[in-house]
Amino acid sequence: MVALSDLTPEQHRLLSEQTVELASWAFGNAGTRFKVFSTPGTPRDPFEKVADAAQVHRFTGITPRVSLHIPWDETEDYAKLRAYAKDQGITLGNINSNVFQDDDYKFGSLTNSDPKLRRKAIDAHKHCIDIMGLTGSDTLKIWLGDGTNYPGQDSIDARQDRLADSLQQIYGYLSEDQKLLLEYKFFEPAFYATDVPDWGTALLHVLALGERAVVCLDTGHHAPGTNVEFIVDQLLRAGRLGAFDFNSRFYADDDLMVGAADPFQLFRIMNEIVSYGALDKDSGVNFMLDQCHQLEEKIPGEIRSAMNVQEATAKALLVDREALSAAQEAHDVLGANGVLMDAFYTDVRPLLAGLREEQGLDPDPYGAFLRSGYLEKAREERVGGTQASWGA
Amino acid sequence: MVALSDLTPEQHRLLSEQTVELASWAFGNAGTRFKVFSTPGTPRDPFEKVADAAQVHRFTGITPRVSLHIPWDETEDYAKLRAYAKDQGITLGNINSNVFQDDDYKFGSLTNSDPKLRRKAIDAHKHCIDIMGLTGSDTLKIWLGDGTNYPGQDSIDARQDRLADSLQQIYGYLSEDQKLLLEYKFFEPAFYATDVPDWGTALLHVLALGERAVVCLDTGHHAPGTNVEFIVDQLLRAGRLGAFDFNSRFYADDDLMVGAADPFQLFRIMNEIVSYGALDKDSGVNFMLDQCHQLEEKIPGEIRSAMNVQEATAKALLVDREALSAAQEAHDVLGANGVLMDAFYTDVRPLLAGLREEQGLDPDPYGAFLRSGYLEKAREERVGGTQASWGA
Amino acid sequence: MVALSDLTPEQHRLLSEQTVELASWAFGNAGTRFKVFSTPGTPRDPFEKVADAAQVHRFTGITPRVSLHIPWDETEDYAKLRAYAKDQGITLGNINSNVFQDDDYKFGSLTNSDPKLRRKAIDAHKHCIDIMGLTGSDTLKIWLGDGTNYPGQDSIDARQDRLADSLQQIYGYLSEDQKLLLEYKFFEPAFYATDVPDWGTALLHVLALGERAVVCLDTGHHAPGTNVEFIVDQLLRAGRLGAFDFNSRFYADDDLMVGAADPFQLFRIMNEIVSYGALDKDSGVNFMLDQCHQLEEKIPGEIRSAMNVQEATAKALLVDREALSAAQEAHDVLGANGVLMDAFYTDVRPLLAGLREEQGLDPDPYGAFLRSGYLEKAREERVGGTQASWGA
Amino acid sequence: MVALSDLTPEQHRLLSEQTVELASWAFGNAGTRFKVFSTPGTPRDPFEKVADAAQVHRFTGITPRVSLHIPWDETEDYAKLRAYAKDQGITLGNINSNVFQDDDYKFGSLTNSDPKLRRKAIDAHKHCIDIMGLTGSDTLKIWLGDGTNYPGQDSIDARQDRLADSLQQIYGYLSEDQKLLLEYKFFEPAFYATDVPDWGTALLHVLALGERAVVCLDTGHHAPGTNVEFIVDQLLRAGRLGAFDFNSRFYADDDLMVGAADPFQLFRIMNEIVSYGALDKDSGVNFMLDQCHQLEEKIPGEIRSAMNVQEATAKALLVDREALSAAQEAHDVLGANGVLMDAFYTDVRPLLAGLREEQGLDPDPYGAFLRSGYLEKAREERVGGTQASWGA
Repeated sequence: MVALSDLTPEQHRLLSEQTVELASWAFGNAGTRFKVFSTPGTPRDPFEKVADAAQVHRFTGITPRVSLHIPWDETEDYAKLRAYAKDQGITLGNINSNVFQDDDYKFGSLTNSDPKLRRKAIDAHKHCIDIMGLTGSDTLKIWLGDGTNYPGQDSIDARQDRLADSLQQIYGYLSEDQKLLLEYKFFEPAFYATDVPDWGTALLHVLALGERAVVCLDTGHHAPGTNVEFIVDQLLRAGRLGAFDFNSRFYADDDLMVGAADPFQLFRIMNEIVSYGALDKDSGVNFMLDQCHQLEEKIPGEIRSAMNVQEATAKALLVDREALSAAQEAHDVLGANGVLMDAFYTDVRPLLAGLREEQGLDPDPYGAFLRSGYLEKAREERVGGTQASWGA
Repeated sequence: MVALSDLTPEQHRLLSEQTVELASWAFGNAGTRFKVFSTPGTPRDPFEKVADAAQVHRFTGITPRVSLHIPWDETEDYAKLRAYAKDQGITLGNINSNVFQDDDYKFGSLTNSDPKLRRKAIDAHKHCIDIMGLTGSDTLKIWLGDGTNYPGQDSIDARQDRLADSLQQIYGYLSEDQKLLLEYKFFEPAFYATDVPDWGTALLHVLALGERAVVCLDTGHHAPGTNVEFIVDQLLRAGRLGAFDFNSRFYADDDLMVGAADPFQLFRIMNEIVSYGALDKDSGVNFMLDQCHQLEEKIPGEIRSAMNVQEATAKALLVDREALSAAQEAHDVLGANGVLMDAFYTDVRPLLAGLREEQGLDPDPYGAFLRSGYLEKAREERVGGTQASWGA
Repeated sequence: MVALSDLTPEQHRLLSEQTVELASWAFGNAGTRFKVFSTPGTPRDPFEKVADAAQVHRFTGITPRVSLHIPWDETEDYAKLRAYAKDQGITLGNINSNVFQDDDYKFGSLTNSDPKLRRKAIDAHKHCIDIMGLTGSDTLKIWLGDGTNYPGQDSIDARQDRLADSLQQIYGYLSEDQKLLLEYKFFEPAFYATDVPDWGTALLHVLALGERAVVCLDTGHHAPGTNVEFIVDQLLRAGRLGAFDFNSRFYADDDLMVGAADPFQLFRIMNEIVSYGALDKDSGVNFMLDQCHQLEEKIPGEIRSAMNVQEATAKALLVDREALSAAQEAHDVLGANGVLMDAFYTDVRPLLAGLREEQGLDPDPYGAFLRSGYLEKAREERVGGTQASWGA
Repeated sequence: MVALSDLTPEQHRLLSEQTVELASWAFGNAGTRFKVFSTPGTPRDPFEKVADAAQVHRFTGITPRVSLHIPWDETEDYAKLRAYAKDQGITLGNINSNVFQDDDYKFGSLTNSDPKLRRKAIDAHKHCIDIMGLTGSDTLKIWLGDGTNYPGQDSIDARQDRLADSLQQIYGYLSEDQKLLLEYKFFEPAFYATDVPDWGTALLHVLALGERAVVCLDTGHHAPGTNVEFIVDQLLRAGRLGAFDFNSRFYADDDLMVGAADPFQLFRIMNEIVSYGALDKDSGVNFMLDQCHQLEEKIPGEIRSAMNVQEATAKALLVDREALSAAQEAHDVLGANGVLMDAFYTDVRPLLAGLREEQGLDPDPYGAFLRSGYLEKAREERVGGTQASWGA
């Protein structure tokens, strides 16, 4: 059995310092095109979302930031929200733009052939950058729903031109200490051609922009069968892996809890990160949860997810890298694979319980939160108003 | 060039008699989980949907029926709706149940472990059957969103037991001249295990129910790479191919216009139908469009789709079956494939223009509808109210 | 930490009695269409394959049978082979037919439109049944490569007719205590339409044959994203799950070691088996490895694979079924999922080491085999001759 | 009906000048890992392959080059082979390296951690470049089978380093008028991580090499659902689309005849080429067939395939680009899509028959070849010897 004391000081440090950013929208209702189910106690505004996010950090100790989504989290006084977060023990993280929910963007936002609408979409991003100044966020995250549903609907190539120009304008509006994070996605909401569908396209765009433009890898945004850890390596090699959006999927962009569908894949991804030396907080790679809790309770779902990332990280740290290299050199396929599997099959939960105790946390964050009474209180207090969901 | 006169009398008859059922919801707004875009002129109630559906028939001559969706098309006086449809030149078709949009069905409808909720879902189907009596519909179509998002969330097996029992109760409520049509779907809205995910599961359920239970094949409801025409053949062999829900997809259940993503697949499906002798209106196979017109105009989209089905059918009828059999017998792979491709590459649009003229229709239904001014009038008149969409 | 003593007597019995059948061809060379790499020490005949298979059993204690493949394992004296296996401590298992490697079967075997060739394929199966009498095997396993590469190449429907007839003739030749096991596969070697592509088609055929016809589920033979444990449940419900061909895949039918690509899926499959009560040796479900060891050592690869199945089984047995049911009833999504994950994350290797020691085996079968010197001896002795591979 | 006279002079020129390169190995036997079927009349050496390739050009007039594969087409006197090709009316095209069929490359070639084996693989490429000097070929095409089958088997990152270095050495050996063409492939023969799996990876490598390094897009080498024409655009934008390997697929890398599985996709690809202005022979994009004729006759299969490319090109040229742009600008989804579909549904076979007659060719290349007696003669004369296949 592996215990905290089995870690080297460096492994201990890396595990202790690891953080995972949360997304404010994970605390609102989410669903499919068929239905968004509601749940008692769901937040009605950004403040309540921040409060919920803070709970996750309170019990896990590894989620000190929460991303905002504009306009979903639009508020009159960002300084107040920032202060509120600080009071709750967390900070505001990335600002996520949203140019896919206005009727004006029906045929595209940053790629729209109508200059007026494209201008509006660019301005929406500038507005996000303005907010970053108020919230203290250093990263603008762009996930674009742009694309076409039918062959011929628009020129694939002209859309790339317009996208490049739009991104250039947005990038130019950033200050020197701010970054642009561009996310790619295989499909949905566009069903024929998505304008930023894969890591290659995203990388070409950020390379054209400059050094402060990086790529966001959402684990659910790939074609079936894609080897995600290979892409992790490619983006690290290019120096442009900016962030992960963690979640999991069985089919498409299911946005289930990270580690729920394929825990071995999560481990392989973290193993790639660790072996590349990119776990360190100074590596510039931001780990974030981007999930939809449609049927399950949201705060406990986020707690479980943060724990899943932490467990996968611990396992990746436990990989015997010397033995692995030796077996690889010797072309000992089973030996090398065995070294990896040994780490994966190791039960690291006691080790992490030890880490939490060391940090003054309950060794069982999930149970402790359930016992805290927070959910019951939220259900009681959050009556009336409109529950936050993707539309707000 | 192929003309109407090149058809045999039997081919001419089959093509003339072919019908395609429309879905009322195709005329309302549709979208993804990210956004449902609105369009001026969109219907606000079942009557306006029926009026729009009738336009499609008016110009194509092959869409004489429109399916209803309950509760989306719930109305106080079904006799009035039925009469209205008749006045417009069409009839009311299948009744589609909907047990996926009530908060009560969050964890399942016909499969729910809570007897009270399962009873509610069964009753919702009985209500649909009652409506069938009023509308003159002979088929209850069930597409079930039921399933689970996480391994362990519920027992796969217990859900099958409950589903079987629920279907039995619903089937028992049908009259002798009514049919139950069960649809399967690979995934969405459930992301781990869908309760009726494939043709095998659907077939086992309808076989257990009785002779008036049949399977609905939605062309977009399969795993990537699935050979759909093979399934067509299997269901025909089992005597249980009840209907098609036509649409097309590049990725998942994209619900694009039929023939838009892979016109060759549509042709192969129709070829299987024709070669099996299942095109005849007495074959019991109902052809229906089940599509989402998110970005494109809805009525013209339906017209184009109906024409696509008709063109694929005409091509399938033109396959030289004697030459095909001879090449197949001779193991002449290229020869046999060539016979099929010859038919597919034939431009049947002049032939169909001829058929329409023979029927007193404009040879160009799409253009004729656009020129009719109907869209402009709808945009003008349908102001205020709530546009129909998936939620209504 | 979980130890052997934590098991109930029933769990202990089930785990102790579990067996996994090996495939003779796993010990020969295998590869892709691009290359079959050779390895020193590879068997040259069925006797050497049996000897290697016996090693796996000697060290794991759970693989007491080895399947034969005809004609790959054709030998002049099956009684001698049977006695040899017995001497080695194992028995001969299923007989696998092969009608995909003769030029005569280029356009099909049991589905061929040429009566002479179809007769030849049927006779090849009767020959396998004759061999079963000599080897004491009770199951004829049929995996069919039949299918077509191009639309139109042959009639999908006529091929089904011929297949049904061929299977009927083969089934009729079996004795009352023999079974027919029909395997399905999504694609490969056929690239357009495979004649038995899915569980639905296989099930319809075995249902038509009779009670002693069952379906074989190869874990690598599905479309991307298919929920395999759902199919396990369907086949169990139908009383026709005859066997598993275990292996794993990232893309297509990769035939990698079971548990190597997605250990969580293997656990879910075993969990379905356990929860249905189908683990018992009297349940009629045969567990078999069907893998290709292209790059890795074969005997150690099989040992690792057998251990992977055993570990997944142990984890499945550890699922707290009462807690699971309670959480499911309560619609506690996270709770129910958590019960499953708890079992999956448990390190059962100490428990299984205990089981082996109880059985007088080395607690580390993989290491013990490597230390045994068997591989070195085989490399030394097996010089000259032709190494067994898929072609022999 | 569209006739040759409907083309503009520019369209006429582009269509007249289009060429498609053939692959020598397409005339040898091919198969799956399960079986390579043989066919009477199959070539036994590079000369007979060249003779067969020349037949395709003789009848279609658009395939004036044939690629060689080393060592499959290794011959003692390349000058003689070059002269022979010239006599037959064609020239020798690309040289394709092969470092996947030697036991030494079991664990990698250009990526192998063993410096001696990596050197051998690099030298094999230098040997190809030497041959290019003799055959007059200007392009070295590299498709690499390198990759790993199991997580941990080797370091993803270290393999990229070694690959980059190997490519650099090979590129440095090229003369100034020679190009390096790097192909990517999703999977197979590697089943876990392929070293050049996607266009992004290939592009990064060729960008690092220099201006004479370009990417080869094989239409069958993508994940399910990938939008290939989007990648065409990306590579054209980057100025690095070097060539197409045309074929078609239903599932994986099926290598069926181009246009056989999804003729609409082929049309969309050619439409992207035409709309980007990359059809012109000076554009630097080489069109090639890379197919396996497993069941069908090879020369007729190549003729049909070349015709398929030509037909798709003609349709792409017929797209009304003014109308398309206008509809796109107006966000007229159905109108824009309709413009594309109109071209696709047009029967261009009469137009191409006209083009052939203008060029002094039989309007029906497929039929004319079959009537020529060549196949019968080959079957009669090519007796004995070893038929060419993937292994030779």
